Amino acid sequence: MFRQALHEIRISTRGRGFYEFTDAVQTWISQNHLQNGLVTLHVRHTSASLLIQENADPDVRRDLEAFFSRLVPDGDPLFVHTVEGEDDMPAHVRAALTAVNLSIPVEKARLTLGIWQGIYLWEHRRAPHQRIVTAHFLGE
Amino acid sequence: MFRQALHEIRISTRGRGFYEFTDAVQTWISQNHLQNGLVTLHVRHTSASLLIQENADPDVRRDLEAFFSRLVPDGDPLFVHTVEGEDDMPAHVRAALTAVNLSIPVEKARLTLGIWQGIYLWEHRRAPHQRIVTAHFLGE
Amino acid sequence: MFRQALHEIRISTRGRGFYEFTDAVQTWISQNHLQNGLVTLHVRHTSASLLIQENADPDVRRDLEAFFSRLVPDGDPLFVHTVEGEDDMPAHVRAALTAVNLSIPVEKARLTLGIWQGIYLWEHRRAPHQRIVTAHFLGE
Repeated sequence: MFRQALHEIRISTRGRGFYEFTDAVQTWISQNHLQNGLVTLHVRHTSASLLIQENADPDVRRDLEAFFSRLVPDGDPLFVHTVEGEDDMPAHVRAALTAVNLSIPVEKARLTLGIWQGIYLWEHRRAPHQRIVTAHFLGE
Repeated sequence: MFRQALHEIRISTRGRGFYEFTDAVQTWISQNHLQNGLVTLHVRHTSASLLIQENADPDVRRDLEAFFSRLVPDGDPLFVHTVEGEDDMPAHVRAALTAVNLSIPVEKARLTLGIWQGIYLWEHRRAPHQRIVTAHFLGE
Repeated sequence: MFRQALHEIRISTRGRGFYEFTDAVQTWISQNHLQNGLVTLHVRHTSASLLIQENADPDVRRDLEAFFSRLVPDGDPLFVHTVEGEDDMPAHVRAALTAVNLSIPVEKARLTLGIWQGIYLWEHRRAPHQRIVTAHFLGE
């Protein structure tokens, strides 16, 4: 029998960096007895991203952050939109360069992620923020 | 009761820039009495993107365009595919760096967008184009 | 009547480059008599991407690869995560800059792709790899 479920995942960030929430999604699937279907995640902000990346060696995230910091430098004089700080416009650019929503099939109550894949909220602002990710399930 | 709906949104661009069409999607949802489900948008072109970004300060879009123009310069001698103009290959690169489809949950007949999020077609070619976005709904 | 289908598409790569698999997805849709709905593709790796791009002139892919090779150079001294080779961390960055999942509406048993759009696995590692893409259908 087909059904839907909707959930808000709240993530308190401590500023720029990666916050894995794979377990929060998987727990929600398990607790609601969702078996087979599609999970869609959508971040309701324009200065944070959703990222599926390696969750083994933490150096991967360190290097990702280093690359994006160099590619989109804070305080770049190119930017006009600076009233909210020198990291604000870079945060919007980073969000445009990455993803704000993800869709992952679910099989036998498990996200069909690869063995090394984790789901992260990528906070692009330097200050701590409260972030909301909408999780939607459609399936059986 | 589960149902589907499919719709083509046509957007006439005046060349490179951002064209918000959040209202077109929301109106289609309302007129078809779609209540809860998943909306997927897919742009049927390889030189335009779909973007969810801030729809408050227009400087955000100005700065996004400035950043991408610098990152992927028109007329870059690196490119071989130039028969359609010096902005053609940069348009393909910009499309690869951003998104061509988006999935947004719908709750109580409303897109679950954040308060500052708008949905844009990002035209990457300099000349005006007719663009088609497929909108798909699956839900109740 | 609503139904789901799940499929694993296996792609053997010969190293860095683009591997079109539009036909594999379309054949799966046809053979399972899937008519109208949503196809979601998810690549189960963190050093390969999914890309919808022009499948006409091969120079477009050549130029895309040239641009990304310049933007994220192999052996960049910025990177700390280098034990798996100088192309490993660039592969993760390329995956973050592009997409790992895609959702495409299906109408009358056909993917609603634009006339020039093909679906590619983009292998970012230099060595050959076995890649798995999960294909999920939800619809009628």
